[in-house]
Amino acid sequence: MSDKLRQVQRLIRPEILDMKAYHVPDSVGLMKLDAMENPYTWPAEMKKDWLKLMADLEPNRYPDPGAKELIKEMRSCFGIDPSLGVVLGNGSDELIQLLLMALQSSSSVMAPTPSFVMYQHIAKTLGLDFYGVPLQVDFSLDTKAMLALVEKQQPSIVFLAYPNNPTANLFNRGDIIKIINASDGLVVIDEAYQPFADDSFLDDVMKYPNVVLIRTVSKLGLAGIRLGYLVAHKALAEQFEKIRLPYNINSFTQLTAHFAFSHYKILQQQAELICQQRQWLLAELSKVTLLEVFPSQANFILFRVIDGQAIEIFEALKSSGILIKNMGVVAGLPSECLRVTVGSEEQNKIFVRTLSEILVVS
Amino acid sequence: MSDKLRQVQRLIRPEILDMKAYHVPDSVGLMKLDAMENPYTWPAEMKKDWLKLMADLEPNRYPDPGAKELIKEMRSCFGIDPSLGVVLGNGSDELIQLLLMALQSSSSVMAPTPSFVMYQHIAKTLGLDFYGVPLQVDFSLDTKAMLALVEKQQPSIVFLAYPNNPTANLFNRGDIIKIINASDGLVVIDEAYQPFADDSFLDDVMKYPNVVLIRTVSKLGLAGIRLGYLVAHKALAEQFEKIRLPYNINSFTQLTAHFAFSHYKILQQQAELICQQRQWLLAELSKVTLLEVFPSQANFILFRVIDGQAIEIFEALKSSGILIKNMGVVAGLPSECLRVTVGSEEQNKIFVRTLSEILVVS
Repeated sequence: MSDKLRQVQRLIRPEILDMKAYHVPDSVGLMKLDAMENPYTWPAEMKKDWLKLMADLEPNRYPDPGAKELIKEMRSCFGIDPSLGVVLGNGSDELIQLLLMALQSSSSVMAPTPSFVMYQHIAKTLGLDFYGVPLQVDFSLDTKAMLALVEKQQPSIVFLAYPNNPTANLFNRGDIIKIINASDGLVVIDEAYQPFADDSFLDDVMKYPNVVLIRTVSKLGLAGIRLGYLVAHKALAEQFEKIRLPYNINSFTQLTAHFAFSHYKILQQQAELICQQRQWLLAELSKVTLLEVFPSQANFILFRVIDGQAIEIFEALKSSGILIKNMGVVAGLPSECLRVTVGSEEQNKIFVRTLSEILVVS
Repeated sequence: MSDKLRQVQRLIRPEILDMKAYHVPDSVGLMKLDAMENPYTWPAEMKKDWLKLMADLEPNRYPDPGAKELIKEMRSCFGIDPSLGVVLGNGSDELIQLLLMALQSSSSVMAPTPSFVMYQHIAKTLGLDFYGVPLQVDFSLDTKAMLALVEKQQPSIVFLAYPNNPTANLFNRGDIIKIINASDGLVVIDEAYQPFADDSFLDDVMKYPNVVLIRTVSKLGLAGIRLGYLVAHKALAEQFEKIRLPYNINSFTQLTAHFAFSHYKILQQQAELICQQRQWLLAELSKVTLLEVFPSQANFILFRVIDGQAIEIFEALKSSGILIKNMGVVAGLPSECLRVTVGSEEQNKIFVRTLSEILVVS
């Protein structure tokens, strides 16, 4: 490396230089049960109507910077109170980044661990301190530890995934309210998996001015278009809106999301099907000896295999053409945990059969 | 506003609280000559082939996080040396943001003024100091002032748009090389308007390890898909790649850009047509008395009207259904400047005729 290059690299945050790139495993040719995607496609008629719309898309023109038509449809579709503000992101990843960028440089971030990895990753890329508080053994929040940290460090922002990833549970609502009330900072409720859960904080945003709700439509069957949304008090949302890049939601995403939400019933039916399949999968996995299966309010299931076998089972599944996620060693999570996305009926059957065969052999 | 809300707002950077939202004027029903869009659409056959591809797009699956196929096509299409690194952004806006996010918190930013507004806007949202150095009266760089500032402030990053927006000229290559050589920081050459210019720094990136080249494909006829790219030494690009959000380029953009670049000749022909139209427009506007028309190496033209008339002429054009850009009061730019995007032959004729009529009347 030349002297000049070495010199220029020194301008970059040391946290970034030390960082490894975010790795997404190659999935070519594999049955993807690793990424919490909705396995269902659209009915032929719906796809045809969508393609008709696409024919009128003008790639040479900038998208509507305010995405006004889309936001209108989303407000009606998701029941967002007109007095609340909505900000759109290129996936919820971008909203997490936007929230952290908006904070003063001395800010710190708190989240339970394990949780969605991007909270810590993006905090680090921005040079913000991150406090991770391990979950309790039953995956509930360690509310005592979190409240103590809130009091001591006054984090500017707390992330709570509801349901949580990778543990798949909903935290106790009362615990969350305690943290919201105790916190002088923002509390972000990340409802990425809300379409599969029994509860939501959407109706609570109005009551708690320090609560910011974020959601993605990725798990609803729209992972390819990259769309997340943030709901908060208007005065707060307006600040975030100022730093949103004006054309962050492209024409295709605006058109496709608007179309999909005007067929929201179909997306809801697919989510319902996924919930049914989750129940089937939970029941089937529970019958398999040597597996500890954790409850789920999401479109994935966390389970634990016997000591020392997680890597082996993960690799055996991969050799059989099935990609799931090996959780590895994470604070707040028992060792030997694997995470599987709920697939289609057929995929789930293949998965259970293959896993059972692997466990019998090993 | 509640106390809690007021308290939470105090966590946000004061620069953001003081900021006005980035405003994009409403253009419904107007002939858009304000945003440097390519006025041409694709041949019917090409559009048909593209729609066939779109029919296979799976909205329920995440995009390829590495956009490998697309980058391969872009390397070949734009002639990017295999030893250089490429990073993709959701428009070049996101690349500017990514570059500034990567810098240590104490960093400062320098750019000539006027130039692309996002350099200063994004620097501000991240709480970075911004030094603007006004251009000379002929729109050339004030190299002396810039070199003095480089020596005194050692900015971590310098932005140079090549060609520059809104002045439409290419800066002197020798002046840029002087700044690159004198700078201990990064020098970003922003080639958003490169398809219409006689020169590029792409072949210089290898030689200067502190140079980062960014481009967008918006002006090439793909503004709706939001795609920008960054080219730099691999060791540097790798650092930026670490903080790129892994799914920032959605499936549609990957597929559409790949398709469009495999028809690169058509995009090039459109750019060529725009250059021809620019020459026609430059010649026609030069014939109009009371206009000062500046040279252009871009797909837009800056011109100056007589004192006190810019707003009036801008509004009269708008009333006639034509949206251009009134530059207002900007350091380094004479007053009374307007900027018009080169449109199609028909649009340009309408524009010249309407403008001439307005000038005769006023």
